[in-house]
Amino acid sequence: MNEADLIERLRRIATHPAARKLQDDAAVLDGLVLTQDSLAEGVHFLSTDPPASVGWKLVAVNLSDLAAKGAEPVAALLSFSLSQSDWDSGVIDGIGAACESYGIALIGGDTIALPPDAPRVYGLTAIGRAGENVPSRAGGHAGDRLWIAGTVGDSAAGLAQLGDDDAATGPLVDIYRRPVPLLEMGRSLAPHATAMMDISDGVLIDLSRLCSASGCGAEVDLDSLPLSDAFVAERGQDRAARLFAATGGDDYALLAAFPADLDPVSLSLPRAPTLACVGRLVAGGGFKLHDRNGDVPLPKRLGYEHRASSASVDDRL
Amino acid sequence: MNEADLIERLRRIATHPAARKLQDDAAVLDGLVLTQDSLAEGVHFLSTDPPASVGWKLVAVNLSDLAAKGAEPVAALLSFSLSQSDWDSGVIDGIGAACESYGIALIGGDTIALPPDAPRVYGLTAIGRAGENVPSRAGGHAGDRLWIAGTVGDSAAGLAQLGDDDAATGPLVDIYRRPVPLLEMGRSLAPHATAMMDISDGVLIDLSRLCSASGCGAEVDLDSLPLSDAFVAERGQDRAARLFAATGGDDYALLAAFPADLDPVSLSLPRAPTLACVGRLVAGGGFKLHDRNGDVPLPKRLGYEHRASSASVDDRL
Repeated sequence: MNEADLIERLRRIATHPAARKLQDDAAVLDGLVLTQDSLAEGVHFLSTDPPASVGWKLVAVNLSDLAAKGAEPVAALLSFSLSQSDWDSGVIDGIGAACESYGIALIGGDTIALPPDAPRVYGLTAIGRAGENVPSRAGGHAGDRLWIAGTVGDSAAGLAQLGDDDAATGPLVDIYRRPVPLLEMGRSLAPHATAMMDISDGVLIDLSRLCSASGCGAEVDLDSLPLSDAFVAERGQDRAARLFAATGGDDYALLAAFPADLDPVSLSLPRAPTLACVGRLVAGGGFKLHDRNGDVPLPKRLGYEHRASSASVDDRL
Repeated sequence: MNEADLIERLRRIATHPAARKLQDDAAVLDGLVLTQDSLAEGVHFLSTDPPASVGWKLVAVNLSDLAAKGAEPVAALLSFSLSQSDWDSGVIDGIGAACESYGIALIGGDTIALPPDAPRVYGLTAIGRAGENVPSRAGGHAGDRLWIAGTVGDSAAGLAQLGDDDAATGPLVDIYRRPVPLLEMGRSLAPHATAMMDISDGVLIDLSRLCSASGCGAEVDLDSLPLSDAFVAERGQDRAARLFAATGGDDYALLAAFPADLDPVSLSLPRAPTLACVGRLVAGGGFKLHDRNGDVPLPKRLGYEHRASSASVDDRL
C-alpha cells in the first residue's frame, strides 16, 4: 500500500460532509473550522533551529490553514513530546508568543514521553470560527484566475542557507523559522474566492491538489510568481530561481481562485501582503507552465512530498 | 524545568475558560467537548501489538475522555505517522472499526513521515457534543462518595502477560489492546456526578488528580475495587493484587464523585459495566487507603507517570 492507497482508505472512513473528502486544509463542523498539523524533528524542523521558533512555527502552520478557510482563530489543543528542560521551555515560549500574537487560547492536549533518542514530535489542533463562506479546494472552475497572497520561495531559500551554514541568519532564515499566517488577508478573500488553500508544500504541488479537487487543469505564468526582494537578492529571478520558488514549500502564502470578472485587488484588503495573479484554471486535467521565453517543462518534483512514490497525492489530509 | 514547571508554564497560556485550567480530560467550547491524546510506540503500545489494535486503541482512549465528560462522540482528526504498508493498513483497519463502532466520522488531520527508525506516533483529536452537564475533575466536595464504573487492573495484567510472553493471548491481553470506552455509562452518570474522569494512568494517580483539582483528600477501600473474574484468576485478589490493579493504568474505567445521598445504582443506567463505591472524598489534602486488614501504606508509585520526577502532576493536560 502506498500513500495514495492509504489516503484512499482513510477517505472511505471519512464520509461525513465535515470531512470535505479529506481534500481540504481543514474540516468544518458546527460553525467551527478545525485543522491538525504536526511538526517532527529532522522532517519539519532542524535540531539546530531555536526551540522558540519551533513552537512559533507549530502554531503558525496550523493558523495558516485557518487563514486559507477565512476563519478566525479561537483555540488550540497541543500534543507535546517531553524533551530536555531548556528545549521544552523554549518551545513553550514560542507557542505562547504565537498564541498571544494571534489571540488564541490553549485549551487542552497531552504531553507524551517518547523513547530516548526519538525525534521530537509536536502536534496542534487549531480551531477557528467559520466566516460567511469557507472556501474549499474543490470550488474552482475553468476560467477562474489564480492569485497568490504573499511571496513564495523565501522559506526554502532560508532553509538552503541553513543547509550551507547552520549559523546563517537573515530575513530568509527568519521566514523559514517564523512564518506568518495571513489571517486578515484570508478573511478578506474568503467571501469571494471560489477555492482557496495555503501553500505549505510548494506552489506547484499545492496547485495540483487544488486542480485535482476542483476537476480542472491550470496554466501558470512563472514570471508572475511573487518573489521578495530578499529572495531575489539571494537567488536571482531567472527561470531556475522561479522554479525553485515554485517548488520549495513552507511558504504559508495563500493560493486562491476568483472568477475572471472579479479583481480581488479591488476588494477591501489589508495593506500587506501583496496579491499577484499567477495564472488561471482551465478545463481538463492538464497543467502548463510558461514564462516570457515560452513553455516551461514541468519539473519532476512539484514540491515537498512525504514519500517519493506519492506524486500528486494529498499528504495534508 | 521539570514536568510540573512545564505544565505550569502551559497553564499560564491556557487562561480561556474552555481550557478548564488544563486540569481536565477535555476542553469545552461552543457546546463541543474536545480532547487530544497520542500513542507512541514503545510507550503506549508494543511493536509486537497487532496494528489494528493500535488503531482501535487510539480511537478508544480518546473516546474514553469524552465518556468521562458525558459527551456524545461526533468526529475525529487524525495525525498519522507513515510506516510500512502492512502496518499502516492494519492501523487504519483498527481506526475504521472503532470509528464505525462508535459512530464517529474522521474529518481531517495530517500524515507525517518520521525519520527512519523513529518510533511510530499517532495522535487523535476527538470531538463530542456536550450533554446538559459536563462534569469536570474539579467539582468534587468533601463527603461525596467515589464510584468506579468498569473494572480495573485488567489491562495492566494483560500487559504483564505480554511482558512474560509476547505471544500471550486471552481476555486480559484483549482488554489491554482493545479498551472499550464507557460512553453510554458516562452519558448516564454525567448529569448527576459532581466530578468525573476516566482512569487512564491508574486509579490512585488519577484519583489524586481529581482530589487535587477538587481541593479535597480521599479515603479508598482497596477491597471495594472492582476486579474482573479474569483478573482474579490471573493475579488473585489479595492486597498486592489490589495494589497492582489500583496503580496499573490503561483501564478506561470511569471514576466519578456523587453526593453521599445519591446512589448512582438507582439511576437509569446501561446494564454493563458494574458500578462500585470505592471510597469518599474528605476535607483536606490527605489520601488514605485501607482494606479489611487495616490501613494500607500508599505505594510509592501511584500509577503511570510520564516522568519519574513528576509525581502527582497532571500529565494528561
